[in-house]
Amino acid sequence: MRAADRHPDEADPVAVLVRRGDRIESTHRVAYAVADAGGAVLHHAGDVRRPVFPRSSVKPLQALPLVESGAAERFGLSEQELALACASHGGEPMHTEIVAAWLARIGLDPSALECGPHAPSHEASARQLIEQGRPPSPLHNNCSGKHAGMLTLALHLGAPTAGYVAPDHPVQQRISALLAAMSGASLTPPAVDGCGVPAYALPLAGLATAMARLAEPGPSAGAPGRAEACARVRAAMARHPLLVAGSGRACSVIMAAAPGVLVKTGAEGVYVAALPERRLGLALKVADGAGRAAVVALMALLARLGALDRSASAALGDLAAPLLRNHAGRAVGRIEPSPGWPAFDPRVAQGPRQQA
Amino acid sequence: MRAADRHPDEADPVAVLVRRGDRIESTHRVAYAVADAGGAVLHHAGDVRRPVFPRSSVKPLQALPLVESGAAERFGLSEQELALACASHGGEPMHTEIVAAWLARIGLDPSALECGPHAPSHEASARQLIEQGRPPSPLHNNCSGKHAGMLTLALHLGAPTAGYVAPDHPVQQRISALLAAMSGASLTPPAVDGCGVPAYALPLAGLATAMARLAEPGPSAGAPGRAEACARVRAAMARHPLLVAGSGRACSVIMAAAPGVLVKTGAEGVYVAALPERRLGLALKVADGAGRAAVVALMALLARLGALDRSASAALGDLAAPLLRNHAGRAVGRIEPSPGWPAFDPRVAQGPRQQA
Repeated sequence: MRAADRHPDEADPVAVLVRRGDRIESTHRVAYAVADAGGAVLHHAGDVRRPVFPRSSVKPLQALPLVESGAAERFGLSEQELALACASHGGEPMHTEIVAAWLARIGLDPSALECGPHAPSHEASARQLIEQGRPPSPLHNNCSGKHAGMLTLALHLGAPTAGYVAPDHPVQQRISALLAAMSGASLTPPAVDGCGVPAYALPLAGLATAMARLAEPGPSAGAPGRAEACARVRAAMARHPLLVAGSGRACSVIMAAAPGVLVKTGAEGVYVAALPERRLGLALKVADGAGRAAVVALMALLARLGALDRSASAALGDLAAPLLRNHAGRAVGRIEPSPGWPAFDPRVAQGPRQQA
Repeated sequence: MRAADRHPDEADPVAVLVRRGDRIESTHRVAYAVADAGGAVLHHAGDVRRPVFPRSSVKPLQALPLVESGAAERFGLSEQELALACASHGGEPMHTEIVAAWLARIGLDPSALECGPHAPSHEASARQLIEQGRPPSPLHNNCSGKHAGMLTLALHLGAPTAGYVAPDHPVQQRISALLAAMSGASLTPPAVDGCGVPAYALPLAGLATAMARLAEPGPSAGAPGRAEACARVRAAMARHPLLVAGSGRACSVIMAAAPGVLVKTGAEGVYVAALPERRLGLALKVADGAGRAAVVALMALLARLGALDRSASAALGDLAAPLLRNHAGRAVGRIEPSPGWPAFDPRVAQGPRQQA
């Protein structure tokens, strides 16, 4: 290690470093948990018992009541629509058109969405709206698919559609019960998420457990139909990675390159993964909330868990250690895991042994 | 403190917290130094001897050779142009038009700028470019004023204008010598900044010292004409705060509300201030590079230094502890200093005693 590499933050063993030239410019601390469906934490760093806000990383879980209630069946939800219910999408036409048609089919329109509008995160789509002189609508909100799912569930339950984001609405009650059951955590009163729905804090250990159960619900799945609902959500995400995020987005790129690996980002530096082949779940949080560090940390963990084959690793190299370029296109630095990340014990790295 | 407020990162006494509801969602650690022109560090947190990249925070220093060389005089630089040489501007027409006219007056055009293009950070200006079907030009680069200043200095020195960003170009040699003299630091080989110029790392203690010397060059100013150059740079920034950043931007808003206080942001969580009335300089770095935390940390330090009167404090309240709203407009959280920030000893908080 060169002199310029020494840095006081390297006392934190698990961090993501932003280098300019050889020197560390910024440091992101990371906590993570890898768990199995029984709730055992196999690997961890940092405090994985302290509740953190999972934000959008729990969308695949929030979509489960839509399926297990029978609402998806009754309203003829397509696999694409279910993928969008799990999505933080980029507001591309492929996303907004499906959500708009879905709402129309259930007799609603975009005014029923209570998520608020924001410009598409997909740059070309944002630019196109400006060129067309159209303001962004709630359909462009990255959460519009999740909200369409919540509205569908409200109709199925015979509950009012207005106010479906309130913590005491039957839709949110179903979802909070599911989050508690899947994570094994006791929920405390929620804050409010970016799209208006309740934001429950969960320990990383519980969030990883929930993702392991999504991967492999097994006999502990709990509610009737949960195992089948988990399978449908997994299939929808795996078959439509572009609908879960969008063109060029990390979630979509990773799921396309590593079939069977399900990943989902959340705001403020959260990432989760469900690894059905390894019967594991993982959850991580960058302490400062930086998304640029969360994806690098996720890639480091997927590699340590053996979840990426050679071709996936090659295809995803720029997510694992992104090169930084300046405005003139010159390479000026790199984002990468700190040297202190532990290797995983290969005896446990592959997850619980397959049951006979 | 409520139970939800307890957080392991509060072991770091100096941080900026992002709260969702009552709960800490993300944590930004901060290091800072407050120094006088003699290089004495009066207040500090974290390691202020480790070099960090000051990024654009040193633009007011990078502009000094332009003045003290006589280039500004010879090419008839206006105070507005000098303010833009110190700027990370938003690419608004008020910025790009002045830089374009400046380049034309010295016989150059925007193709001489080696900073590369990027879309204006000022949203309405970025939108206008799209509506007009025009791509961003190097004039819109937030550094275009600094680069126009460097080109002006190159012409004055009889040096080639092409390649003025190279570390061994006479323009950059003048600037690196000035940075070393003002900060008292030994420079190590530079990395490359976002706009292509050399990025020298400086300890926060040295960066704060340099800002104290900008505030009050005194007899230790060093080079001939430096005290006058510092005075001209201070006046340009103070009289044209909107040119140093832009509409609604923190640097501009703070300097407009607190006359005499000079502040400058830098990428990756850096902020500096020069306080001529208190004969002090300050420099801070958010470890993870988050700008949202840097401005909150700056406000906390300015308040502790007594640099904000009652009306400035009132006008700047939303920068000191910004309310976070979701896409539906609902208040969901707040960014604020952690409870652990120390109070400053009032005997030293006001800076060195006025010399008789």
